[in-house]
Order: sequence, then structure tokens, then C-alpha cells
Amino acid sequence: MSAVVSLGLDFGTESVRAILVDRDGQQLAIAAVDFAHGQITDTLPGSSDPLPAHFALQAPDDWLDAAAEATRSAMSQSGVRADQIVGVGVDFTSCTMLPTTIDGTPLCQVESLASVPLAWPKLWKHHGAIQQTERMNRIANHRNESFLARYGGTIGLEWFFPKVLETIENAPQVADAAEVWLEAGDWFVWQLVGGPANELTRSSCQAGYKAMWSASEGYPSLDYFAAVHPLLAEVVANRLPGVMRSPGESAGGVCDAMAKRFGLQTGTPVSAAIIDAHSAVPGVGAADPGTLVMVLGTSSCHMLNATEFANVPGVAGVVDGGILPGMFGYETGQAAVGDAFAWLLKLVNLESFESLSEAAMKLPPGADGVACLDWMNGCRTPLMDGGVRGALTGLGLHHGPEHLYLALMEASAFGLRWIVELLRDGGVPIDRFVATGGLPHHNRAFVEVYADVLGAEIEIHPSTQGPAVGAAVLGMLAAGPDASGFRDVTEAASAMASAKSGQSDKVYPRSDRCAAYHQLYSGYRELARKLGPSNGNSAPRETAN
Amino acid sequence: MSAVVSLGLDFGTESVRAILVDRDGQQLAIAAVDFAHGQITDTLPGSSDPLPAHFALQAPDDWLDAAAEATRSAMSQSGVRADQIVGVGVDFTSCTMLPTTIDGTPLCQVESLASVPLAWPKLWKHHGAIQQTERMNRIANHRNESFLARYGGTIGLEWFFPKVLETIENAPQVADAAEVWLEAGDWFVWQLVGGPANELTRSSCQAGYKAMWSASEGYPSLDYFAAVHPLLAEVVANRLPGVMRSPGESAGGVCDAMAKRFGLQTGTPVSAAIIDAHSAVPGVGAADPGTLVMVLGTSSCHMLNATEFANVPGVAGVVDGGILPGMFGYETGQAAVGDAFAWLLKLVNLESFESLSEAAMKLPPGADGVACLDWMNGCRTPLMDGGVRGALTGLGLHHGPEHLYLALMEASAFGLRWIVELLRDGGVPIDRFVATGGLPHHNRAFVEVYADVLGAEIEIHPSTQGPAVGAAVLGMLAAGPDASGFRDVTEAASAMASAKSGQSDKVYPRSDRCAAYHQLYSGYRELARKLGPSNGNSAPRETAN
Repeated sequence: MSAVVSLGLDFGTESVRAILVDRDGQQLAIAAVDFAHGQITDTLPGSSDPLPAHFALQAPDDWLDAAAEATRSAMSQSGVRADQIVGVGVDFTSCTMLPTTIDGTPLCQVESLASVPLAWPKLWKHHGAIQQTERMNRIANHRNESFLARYGGTIGLEWFFPKVLETIENAPQVADAAEVWLEAGDWFVWQLVGGPANELTRSSCQAGYKAMWSASEGYPSLDYFAAVHPLLAEVVANRLPGVMRSPGESAGGVCDAMAKRFGLQTGTPVSAAIIDAHSAVPGVGAADPGTLVMVLGTSSCHMLNATEFANVPGVAGVVDGGILPGMFGYETGQAAVGDAFAWLLKLVNLESFESLSEAAMKLPPGADGVACLDWMNGCRTPLMDGGVRGALTGLGLHHGPEHLYLALMEASAFGLRWIVELLRDGGVPIDRFVATGGLPHHNRAFVEVYADVLGAEIEIHPSTQGPAVGAAVLGMLAAGPDASGFRDVTEAASAMASAKSGQSDKVYPRSDRCAAYHQLYSGYRELARKLGPSNGNSAPRETAN
Repeated sequence: MSAVVSLGLDFGTESVRAILVDRDGQQLAIAAVDFAHGQITDTLPGSSDPLPAHFALQAPDDWLDAAAEATRSAMSQSGVRADQIVGVGVDFTSCTMLPTTIDGTPLCQVESLASVPLAWPKLWKHHGAIQQTERMNRIANHRNESFLARYGGTIGLEWFFPKVLETIENAPQVADAAEVWLEAGDWFVWQLVGGPANELTRSSCQAGYKAMWSASEGYPSLDYFAAVHPLLAEVVANRLPGVMRSPGESAGGVCDAMAKRFGLQTGTPVSAAIIDAHSAVPGVGAADPGTLVMVLGTSSCHMLNATEFANVPGVAGVVDGGILPGMFGYETGQAAVGDAFAWLLKLVNLESFESLSEAAMKLPPGADGVACLDWMNGCRTPLMDGGVRGALTGLGLHHGPEHLYLALMEASAFGLRWIVELLRDGGVPIDRFVATGGLPHHNRAFVEVYADVLGAEIEIHPSTQGPAVGAAVLGMLAAGPDASGFRDVTEAASAMASAKSGQSDKVYPRSDRCAAYHQLYSGYRELARKLGPSNGNSAPRETAN
């Protein structure tokens, strides 16, 4: 083991993983710890009042508790000492966000507000701001706001400002008390490094993809925000303190209190946060343009670097240097993948897909007539509509759960094909597909369906910890070249995260199934047209533009 | 007990029920016996070769064995003696049909043909004749055949001649050996009374509703059949021996052999058969025009008598005297009701709906956004399309099996409302709803959803045995006025089958839910338009005509 080690902290929806990686790419230890409260969707902790539908909250102490425990566990497993850890990187779900007081205290920990659901951090998948998102889009379109072009023409339901506006409108006492609004990843980094609010580091990645910020233009104009709601403009003007930094830039050193809590050395540099999905790009060593990195988990994010800038209709975000420096980062995504599988599993009252998988993969392409739209949590790319819903069609008395399972996998794959076609049609090259995240390793059948539908080879990156390794790469960068020995992120990613020759598991498309899926894809698009959103605003972008 | 007793034999899809009813309407005994082979859908008995999809066959000996056992059991339970039974009535699923030799031997019992699936009786729900039905419709439309108007413009996939044509085209050796083609109900009556083929009794009810026959015009012309297939014309000309008789007319007396097998007296009069669903109309004493008798079971048939004749688009059959003498009988139906519930239950891997029912009925109308088309076995009225398939839409991650269950009940109720509107819009009055069949007694929630969606009171007839009692009424009629004391069917039905005052269980609509369903019904119709058949031939009749 090299004596130079980085700690990556990878925050998911249910748990955090701590990984220790040395500069040669050896993964010395991984420890995962579940959040004590997981996703808060039914009632607030200690309450029996049901939360509104579509609410998904989290508890901030869970992040600190679980991360400290995971860090200590990884260090103890591997024997890595605090003085060997030269940097800390953090990736986080996004937009998961919260309101705090000026000293960073989450409002859900303020006694008078603790029983108000909107005082709690909203998880990325919280869908309480449907009306607010619609209004923000309507006004932005009406004013022909230039920022829209970078986001496929649509502000997403899961983004930062709709979530702020939801609170302004539905819990004014919380909005009034909120002295700081910020991403959970930024909050966590702020807690690690301590310090006053005006020095807190905001991630340009999160701000760029989820808060309509760009390095050249900043946030949208106060005029726009004021046209939406006067208090929203006031938030942008006064309640977003801090300094914008890119992932890999240091946000400061670990403070005394957190050093004790985590078992780290005081002053260890902490990188600005990165969105979890985006972290997978350095995390699988994909520092080259044209590689689509597919992070397949609860939901999916598909990340792509390109040397070309293009406003691709329906693509959620294009940010200059948003993933890696010097390239345009394209982010696309599918709102429910693992979540949709888990939903189906629960619906058909089974413990695992094991028994279904074999039967499903024996079916011909098209699941014997069953078709699916996997919009059970809305559609991110390309519809950018959290309100559309899923469907199963072609159902006959002879169909069983295995047909639904294959149809769901196919729907997910068709959705990806739609995204790939949009990017290519927009002039953005894609010549390689790399799958990472938890799903590909658990469910090879699923990747096989993807390969058949795309008609392309898919590499499953051997690490199941792409985002976590990416965080470690960024932690190494935050340490600086003297401590790490790396000059830039490409060098660090290449050394620490590339799949070693022969390690990559390649899934090849089967030509007979490819041909069948080529036909079936038209049927999927037709179904998506029939059952997709009918108002112009949220209609498929390639027809609306 | 009156000394004058009638035996009703009610053949369902899985079993037969024997009922003994005296002339005062006392039900002295009921005995049900399952068919040994039930529905044959996977492999032929004694074979491991899988049957094609959509096949549903039966075994003729099952009908005789089960009916004899049920008759003996009912007689022994009640102590009714053979000499007290003055008549036998038979209702049967339809169109369940088979090919036989000239002496009535089913071809599946001829050794050289026993391994050919199409030599076996085809159950009503056998859907092997999709292409044949399409061709028969196309040619009938092209020739502007007048008989189409009596059937809503469309020949059904489950009817008699498509099933004959399927065999002609797909099993020519069976078609060649088939000296007689007939309904299973007619075959059973023929077996009971014995005698040569030219004296076998064909039911005008089955022929009228399922074989395009009418008293005034007979079958469609040989020219039409020849245009479809020369051998089909040859079947109509030469292989349909027998005499047409109405339900309630005697087909002859029980022969010696069957008298021994059933424990009946030789010579006991046997009524011409009636379709099981139609038998429910006399069976619930609904001899008045304007009462929709809904027989809710595996599938549903809705029967209505009216003094008006109207060609209602999409209504499966209008037959003069087809249900009761002197009135026009309108038959409509839904292809999967109990079957669709059973399918859902299997899909969600539960043993019973008990746990779901309570949760489902607590949901607001509309199942929290989930919508359904219950076309898992095609759509009978009004689309007359066995090829359309079901759908579930509006699916979100927060939906569970209870949402699907309510949505399925609502889809069934919306389908019924569509039928009711078509009839009323066509000028056929409906002022009363009576539910019978197995389902209403097992599943009151289902009838509540029907009442809410129709906005009308529904009477659940206290007898769970509507069709069986109807068969007994017809058996009494076959005995003749001297033996029975009844002059006509209205008198007999009224005495033997009317619900006694206070016995009827009435389900009332709830006004708040009615209002909600009034809105939701538009959404259902819109979904049916989007996902319904797209070719002109099988599009909804009210738009195609």
C-alpha cells in the first residue's frame, strides 16, 4: 500500500459508504452504514401524523453519524492511520437540500419548527413542488430566459429553487427562519470544515446542474425570480451565502470537532462536494470524451463528457467543466430504475427477482405483448416531468410477473435508447458505454437487455463503488499536487480508477434480439406519445421545439 | 314440498350444478361437481405437448360424469324421487362447441384424432380463431351482409363459425372427419335423449346469439360462407343436422341408458338448451322489459328484454324471443371479470382479496391515479374484439396491489356503464339492475363500485343460482302445462324464481362517489380510445358507424 491515501464518502439515498483508496488505485477498505431514519416518507420521526404524498425527507444527523461510523470502520478494517489520509472527497445525492440558521443549524433541529415537515431536508426524489415547478417553467418560458437552453428547456421538479419555493408558499414560518439554503452535500462539507456562513463552499457541480448557475452568468436574474415570487428573489439575494468551488478544489481543512468525531487529523483538506452520479465519471476512470457513464441504482444518471457544446432538447443539464475540467458535461437521467424494480417486487409479493429472472429472460423480446412505461417516479430525460406516471399495457390473462419484469427492463432500456438518440441527433458523439452503480452487479440480465436494445457493447466497470472511488479521486486532488503527486483530475482518475485490463465485464448485444428491439422501440415511442404529458410545456422536447 | 319438481343442470366453465326446484320455487337441493379436467389450457390429458397460447378446451365425458354425479347427489340430499321430477332443463356456456361423428361420438374420442387439440371441444373462451374472425368480418362487411346489423356489426371471436373455420384451416383431418358440428349444450341434450342426428335438437338461443341464425332468415347465405371458405359452406349445407327448438320446448325424453346413469325416469322430458347467462333471466324472475340482468362470474353477460327492436352499435346480439318469448332479447357482455380478478390475485401472489378489499375500498374513487382497462381477455361489448389487451396506467411508486384492485373493479364498472349508455342511446330503456352469478355474493365491494359508477341501485338476487334456477324453470316448461301447471314461461319464472319481498339485497349508490366517477368515466373513455384497437374494423362502434 502506498502511504498516500484518500477517503471518499459516497452518500446514497439509504446509506453512506466510506472508501479508502491509495494513489495506485488499491481499495484498502469499504464500509457502508445505513442512515438511522433512511428515507422519511410516512411520518416524521416521533410523530404519527402522515406526511403528504410525494414527500421524501431525511434527517441531517443521520449523515454525520453514519459517515463518522463508516469512516472509523474503514480505517479500523484496513489499519490506515489518520496521518496517511491526505484528503477527503464527498459525493452526495442531489438536489437534496435544506434550510439552516446562519450558523448551519438545520431548521428541523430548531424546536419550534421540528414538527413542520418542510423544515426537514428534502431528498432529491421529494416531489412536493409540482405546482411551483410548473410556474417557474411557465414564467421562464414567457420571459424567454436564456438559462433554459442549458437545461433542455425545462426546470426539473427535483431541483433547488422549486424546492425553496415550495417552502416559501407552504411553510412561510420555515422560509422566514431560513437564513441559509443549501445543498446537503455542501452542508456536510461545511460541517466537516467548520467556519462561518460566508466561507461555506458551494459546489459548482450541484449549483450548475440543479440551481441554474453557470460560471459565466451566475444564477438567473433577480428579475426572473421576483417575477416568480418576491421572496424567492430575496432568497437568491440574501440567503445563499458562500463561495462557489469546483469538485476537487479544497473547501478547507477538517475542524477539531469533526476530526475527533471521524477519527481524522485536524486540517485534512476536504474537497468541494460533487453530485453522486457525476462522481462516477472520475470513479470509473472515464476521463475521455464520448464515453457514456451509466450509474444504475435507485434512479439512474447517465454522464457524458464532450468537446462539443450543444443544447440538446430534453437533456437535463450541460455544464462547462461540470464533471471534469475542460469538457462540457452532459447529465441525463431516468427517475426510477432500482426503485421501479423494488416497486414491482413488492407489488408481486416476492422477496427477490431470482425466480423471475430466468423465466423473464426466456421470453422473446417484447415480453409476449406486454409493454411498459417506467415513469413510476416521473420522467427525467427527456420529458423532464415529475408528474407523468408509469403504465403496463398489452396485458392478457396468460401474463405473469415474469412478463411484467421483462417489460420493465425493456422500458428502462428503451428510455436509455431515447436519450442516446437525442444526444447523437444533437451532435454529441457517444462511442462507448460503461455501466456502474449497484444494479449491474446484482442484475446482469438487466445489462443484457440494455445491450440488446442499444445494439452496443456495454462494459460493466469492475468496481461496484464508482461514485465512492470518484470521491476519493477528488479528495486526492483537494490534497494538492505536493501531497498527492497528481497534476490534474485526468491523471488522478486514470491512476486510481481505470479498470485494469481484463477486469471489465463486457456484455455483448445479441443480433437477433437487437433486430426485434429495433421494431419494438417504435412501439415504445408510440406508447410514450399516447400516454405522455399532453400539455405543450412538458411534452417531449423533440416535438415541442 | 310440492310433488312437482324440475331438475336444472347449470354448466359453468369449471363445474356443473344440479338443482331441484319445485313449482312453488323451493330449492330442495343443490349439488356442484367439478369437471375432472376443468379447463384444458396447458396440455391435453395424458400428453406433455404444450397447447398453443389462447387455447381453452374441455373433455366431453366430464360433462356427463359430473352432471350424473351432481344429479344423484341432489336427489339423495333432498330425498326427491325420480318419479317426482317432471322435466329437465339445461343451461350451458356458449359458444362451447365440438365436432362429432354422425352418431354423436366426439372426435376427441376417436383414437386417430385424440392427440389433435382441435378435435377437442373448444370452450367459449378459446381464442384460437383471431385470423378467422377477422376474415369473416372483413368479407361480411365487404358484402354488406344484413345479418351483421343484429350483432352490432361484428362477428365475435368466440362464436361458432370462426371456431369451425379455425379447425378447417388448422386441422383439416379433423374437419374432414366432423360429420356433425354442434354446441356443447346441444350435444349434452342429444346424449340425454338419444336418437339419430337428424332429430337432435339445436337451441335457437345458442344458434341465434352465437351462430348468426334467426328464425326468419336462418343462417347467413351459403354464398357468404363460400366466399369465406368453400368448406365452411359445405359444413353449413351438410354438417349441421337437427331441428331448431326454443328453450322450454322439449327435445325428447331421457333415454334408457342415461336414465340409468343419472338415476332419472326414462322418458322424462328434456328442454332445449339455453345459454347459461340467458338462463339467469327466468332464473331471477325478471320476465319484465327494462331489467338488466347482470350475470357476474368468470366473465359477465348482461341480458335485457325490451319491446323495442334496435340495432345498437357494439351490442353483441339482438334475438327475437332469444331470452323470453315475445320480447327482443339483447345480449351484451364483458370478456373477463372473475377471470381478471383471479389473474390479478395470482399476479400479486395472494391467496384472497380479503386483505386488499378493505384497503381498496378506503381509497378515493380513481384509485389515487391508477386507471385500468380490463381487456385481459379482449373486449366483448362494445368493441367485439378478442385481440385488444388490458392496461394499467397512472402507476406510481406509492401504488400497491390495493390500488390495482380498485382500478380493476372500476374498469369493469366503467365498461358496464359504457354498455348501458349505448343501449339507452340506442333507444332501449333500462330502469332496473339485478345482479346474479357467483361474484356478487362473494364480493359485495365490487357491486358497490358498480352502483357508484352507474349511479343506480343494484339488487343482488338472493339466489346464487340464477342460471340453474332458470334451467329448472325451462325443465318445468318442457314437462308441459299438464304436468307443471304453468301456461307460459312468465308464469313459471314468476312462481319459481322471483325474489320474495325483503330477500333482495339492495346496494345503493353513494352520491359523493357517483359525482367523482362521473368525471373519471371520461378519463376511462379517453384511455379506451388511446389504447383501443386502431384499425377501422374493430374500432369502437359508435365512432366507426
